[in-house]
Amino acid sequence: MSNSFGSLFKITTFGESHGKAIGVTVDGCPAGITIDEAFIQSELERRKPGQSKITTQRKEPDSFEILSGVFEGKSTGTPIAMVIRNTDQKSKDYAHIAKSYRPSHADFTYQEKYGIRDYRGGGRSSARETAARVAAGALAKLALRQLGIEVAAYVSQVGDLKTEKTYQQLDLSKTENNIVRCPDESIADKMITFIDGIRKSGDTVGGIVTGVITGTPVGLGEPVFDKLHARLGAAMLGINAVKGFEYGSGFEGAKMKGSKHNDIIEKDGDQIKTRTNLSGGIQGGISNGEDIYFNVAFKPVATIMRDQNSIDQDGQTITVSGKGRHDPCVVPRAVPIVEAMAAITILDFYLLNRSTHL
Amino acid sequence: MSNSFGSLFKITTFGESHGKAIGVTVDGCPAGITIDEAFIQSELERRKPGQSKITTQRKEPDSFEILSGVFEGKSTGTPIAMVIRNTDQKSKDYAHIAKSYRPSHADFTYQEKYGIRDYRGGGRSSARETAARVAAGALAKLALRQLGIEVAAYVSQVGDLKTEKTYQQLDLSKTENNIVRCPDESIADKMITFIDGIRKSGDTVGGIVTGVITGTPVGLGEPVFDKLHARLGAAMLGINAVKGFEYGSGFEGAKMKGSKHNDIIEKDGDQIKTRTNLSGGIQGGISNGEDIYFNVAFKPVATIMRDQNSIDQDGQTITVSGKGRHDPCVVPRAVPIVEAMAAITILDFYLLNRSTHL
Amino acid sequence: MSNSFGSLFKITTFGESHGKAIGVTVDGCPAGITIDEAFIQSELERRKPGQSKITTQRKEPDSFEILSGVFEGKSTGTPIAMVIRNTDQKSKDYAHIAKSYRPSHADFTYQEKYGIRDYRGGGRSSARETAARVAAGALAKLALRQLGIEVAAYVSQVGDLKTEKTYQQLDLSKTENNIVRCPDESIADKMITFIDGIRKSGDTVGGIVTGVITGTPVGLGEPVFDKLHARLGAAMLGINAVKGFEYGSGFEGAKMKGSKHNDIIEKDGDQIKTRTNLSGGIQGGISNGEDIYFNVAFKPVATIMRDQNSIDQDGQTITVSGKGRHDPCVVPRAVPIVEAMAAITILDFYLLNRSTHL
Amino acid sequence: MSNSFGSLFKITTFGESHGKAIGVTVDGCPAGITIDEAFIQSELERRKPGQSKITTQRKEPDSFEILSGVFEGKSTGTPIAMVIRNTDQKSKDYAHIAKSYRPSHADFTYQEKYGIRDYRGGGRSSARETAARVAAGALAKLALRQLGIEVAAYVSQVGDLKTEKTYQQLDLSKTENNIVRCPDESIADKMITFIDGIRKSGDTVGGIVTGVITGTPVGLGEPVFDKLHARLGAAMLGINAVKGFEYGSGFEGAKMKGSKHNDIIEKDGDQIKTRTNLSGGIQGGISNGEDIYFNVAFKPVATIMRDQNSIDQDGQTITVSGKGRHDPCVVPRAVPIVEAMAAITILDFYLLNRSTHL
Repeated sequence: MSNSFGSLFKITTFGESHGKAIGVTVDGCPAGITIDEAFIQSELERRKPGQSKITTQRKEPDSFEILSGVFEGKSTGTPIAMVIRNTDQKSKDYAHIAKSYRPSHADFTYQEKYGIRDYRGGGRSSARETAARVAAGALAKLALRQLGIEVAAYVSQVGDLKTEKTYQQLDLSKTENNIVRCPDESIADKMITFIDGIRKSGDTVGGIVTGVITGTPVGLGEPVFDKLHARLGAAMLGINAVKGFEYGSGFEGAKMKGSKHNDIIEKDGDQIKTRTNLSGGIQGGISNGEDIYFNVAFKPVATIMRDQNSIDQDGQTITVSGKGRHDPCVVPRAVPIVEAMAAITILDFYLLNRSTHL
Repeated sequence: MSNSFGSLFKITTFGESHGKAIGVTVDGCPAGITIDEAFIQSELERRKPGQSKITTQRKEPDSFEILSGVFEGKSTGTPIAMVIRNTDQKSKDYAHIAKSYRPSHADFTYQEKYGIRDYRGGGRSSARETAARVAAGALAKLALRQLGIEVAAYVSQVGDLKTEKTYQQLDLSKTENNIVRCPDESIADKMITFIDGIRKSGDTVGGIVTGVITGTPVGLGEPVFDKLHARLGAAMLGINAVKGFEYGSGFEGAKMKGSKHNDIIEKDGDQIKTRTNLSGGIQGGISNGEDIYFNVAFKPVATIMRDQNSIDQDGQTITVSGKGRHDPCVVPRAVPIVEAMAAITILDFYLLNRSTHL
Repeated sequence: MSNSFGSLFKITTFGESHGKAIGVTVDGCPAGITIDEAFIQSELERRKPGQSKITTQRKEPDSFEILSGVFEGKSTGTPIAMVIRNTDQKSKDYAHIAKSYRPSHADFTYQEKYGIRDYRGGGRSSARETAARVAAGALAKLALRQLGIEVAAYVSQVGDLKTEKTYQQLDLSKTENNIVRCPDESIADKMITFIDGIRKSGDTVGGIVTGVITGTPVGLGEPVFDKLHARLGAAMLGINAVKGFEYGSGFEGAKMKGSKHNDIIEKDGDQIKTRTNLSGGIQGGISNGEDIYFNVAFKPVATIMRDQNSIDQDGQTITVSGKGRHDPCVVPRAVPIVEAMAAITILDFYLLNRSTHL
Repeated sequence: MSNSFGSLFKITTFGESHGKAIGVTVDGCPAGITIDEAFIQSELERRKPGQSKITTQRKEPDSFEILSGVFEGKSTGTPIAMVIRNTDQKSKDYAHIAKSYRPSHADFTYQEKYGIRDYRGGGRSSARETAARVAAGALAKLALRQLGIEVAAYVSQVGDLKTEKTYQQLDLSKTENNIVRCPDESIADKMITFIDGIRKSGDTVGGIVTGVITGTPVGLGEPVFDKLHARLGAAMLGINAVKGFEYGSGFEGAKMKGSKHNDIIEKDGDQIKTRTNLSGGIQGGISNGEDIYFNVAFKPVATIMRDQNSIDQDGQTITVSGKGRHDPCVVPRAVPIVEAMAAITILDFYLLNRSTHL
């Protein structure tokens, strides 16, 4: 269970990598939102496989169909179900691993937990499921746009290669200008070349996606357990391959002194602002109106094009050989997923905050 | 709202720093657990203020009273309410900040969100609330102990000072041997001296707490959204002053290649084990039976004994002077809080996993 | 929002009467259940329109498709999504009511709440949505069958015509022998004739469905708020057109004295039984092992083939004329819906009860 | 588990009849509500034992203490914890039933479910727990009052004695004028005499409480599963001793024809009203602005002052003799409980409805 996320804007995803379809039901989408289907599709395109030489070469068009909840182009306040049919299912690619436990994959844990698993392409544990999140996140973005809230993400690190610029020093409108989705042009080409080399060597590499949320009103977040960053962290850690989350000063903040870390509060005309923003736009779990920014660490993809020793379901020693079409580095395609989960989180908090007063 | 945590083992905390009491109701504690009150008290002692020279000198005995749910020394399956009266309330210490917005505190966000706040000692946003979590966590630990699951945490970094040893290289039974709660004796004294210096300079410093969960059976965690590490991360990020969470290889994993990062699966007698454990005991969001380990980054305490510029509720520029009795570094007292939230999370997943099969 | 039901076996339905499809996602179906698709279809047939002369003559085949969560004929523990395409959409039948508020329909309240509504066939408020519940309920029944728990329902009253027999005096295997689904043959024909007359007069009539759950183990139900009968009542009251719910002695019990109402506890061989069962198989909100029985009152269908005065969206006085194809009495088709919601409720409590002990 | 009720205005109760205390935490009480402690106490007085000759003669002052969430007389938006100490605990009254299973009590089911129970006074299954609900309900009433919503309840039936008047024909301000809480003076005295006779005979009797909610705006209720009446029904069925719930036309509606049952919609000045209100103020699960009214059936109290045969925990045949101080009829004291649960339900829906639009 636990295939739902959110309290008032609640998504429930379903589907396996090589089953008939994946999809999502969005319950609690506010009524009256103009549903821009082209935008939803464009978000799916940013995530879909086969979009460039540094992603997997699988071809999934990832066309979605809205089954409910939209009438004459607007959300009606009833559940919006969206389905994406699986079309490029080369299930036979997986026959050889039906009983294998691939290293650092979920084969062993799913088999042990459930006693059964759809082994084709990772089944439910496949990152293909995140397409459903991107579709739901696109709805959230459409709603947030009406509120003046924008969610953006970009690749800030691939392996050891990272941009030295902060998000403020970058022009995030350039993120889509290159296939690695790093708006720092001085490092993007290096990242692409590096990933391409990794791919050719049959290996994979990890990376970091940085997210930025702007335009958030003061007051979002529900202490003490659903602090804005706590649920945002859960949203990110729930994405496949994520190993860490930090916001504001993050792990660097652990090294700092309070006299340097504190964000001095001051007036900027009529508005209350902080001079610095090591807090990452959140105080006491509640947004303070400054930018919310965070980093999400992704491990290297577990499927490599090399032979690895392992064990199968019967406890026999086996050799697992990488086959199929896989990403050498997941972060470029993870950018829209990070944005989607952030958008869903923020919209939910926006709606929750409505109940703070009568 | 959102003062509850957990699905089946669910805690709800209440209380402000300088109100009458803080407390917690634990709903869903399994029946028949022997409730060792001395153990609960000992856990509270580990968190309480005034325990050493490197913590705040406030004196709160943090005595708790069980109001319900325990009969003849055992849990009955009904809600266990525990109350801790506030006794060392020097509320007048706070009169001077009634209308102040202290830098990097939650004064501004609480005031803006709720339109009212109990300003005394931070009110609900005070870390005093975490005593309630420690009491609830002690119950979870008592239950987990019956299952052979142990949760431990320790200070691994204070400012720039950090142990170079992994948790496997340390003897975690030594954590309580020193007041900074670092089991690496070679660095613990330095940390203590460093914090003492920080305190004398009227400043504060951040740090990192490392958590380790051993004895977890295979199968805990509920993909896709309640992956074990996603909810564990939310549990940690919900603790006051936390800025980041990573598990297994964490942020380092983002730099690695798959060929190095993958944990080779092998047989160890009858058992399936992984040779390395960069996965941190979790695959696909489900425990694989290996140790679960993670890092939690804490920012420096925001209250410093220095003058800082700020703004008050009326928008006037003010000088905030540090008063009261505060911690120069929060991590030594955070150790039992990290353990408590981890224990609550794991017990909840243990119970949830029961419904995987008929 | 609130299109989900259940805690651990959780269903989320979607879809409008005249949209593309209706459907359901079942999250938390235990793994390893044999999914008998023919059985699911047969349950849908019991609910579908056009099945007899006393139901609406709309023709919807109500064929379902499983999109996920089933592998090689068994549930995998991942979400099971089922979709039923809408095929007999005569949306033009509804053009004339696009702006009308039909008496005792949800037109007015949906319009006022959401500011927009899919008026075709009632949209989301249509009882067509219950087909999704029947599909999910069929899964629950398949699981309960493995546990020896059976859920049955039948029509016990239509208008003033009611069976004088208790459920124990009836052979519930005969429920499907007649089109009104009343196992009391002495009254079933009268009910059918009565409904047929009602239909011819352009009117509609209410009725009562009685439910019986047998084989329930002791211990299901979660006091104090999720008492077995409280959630069972919510499950029933959530079905379209339901006006009342009672279990055990029900409203009659309000007239009784304790000395007559108390169920004497006695031994029956090794088993503890009650001599009478006015408690309806539930004590303190927890099943006691006796049969659980309950009544569900349905109002007459609001759509009648007569002219009625009303108001439209612009506040103008209008005449609403009954058109389309509607049921003269909803209870025969409600029988499988009552069973489905009961099965979902009981299975959920079965899974919840697993966490009572370590 | 399941000791919480509500989504955004969420209460969690705790406590046993003869433990140290009972209490409640209210999470999500809107900020800025003036907390009238005298009003809360007056509501508790309406429920407390010993208030008249027709209630139990136990003496519990039911004084409450607010531990948190209120500052300078106003709610702060943080959890409000309230504790009521148990003072009149004559636990020795119960020593004789420590191992007994009293007929139609929860002794057997609690013992079987949890394997342990606090047998004193029914422990958690005692209706004493409802005092906590009344305290929480008083908070909800204070909030609803600001919105112009009023919740009232009264005794409409005791045994066979019932008022023939509808709630519209009664002056509900007279409910508190007599000890049976029936505003129909022509029947109230008879009810009192009847209950007194029942008491003298060592017996008990059931009854019906009618509830009325006025001033509700259009739009409350969350279809399809949290229809206003579905959750209201669950709220009522969760009260001790309740056997049935109906709203609007209720079980009578099952006998009616659509042509009589439909509520014609018409204009009343600028407002849209229904001529009749058999719908009970709810259409499609959403309030339509008319009065919401409902009946709640209570069984006779199970504790009678007569000998009854039963079984004990060891399976031995025993005689249970009624001792202690018990109510001959529960409905007079149930009136404030019904009101409390209704107020909590409506306030929660009011807050939930805020998220329908951006």
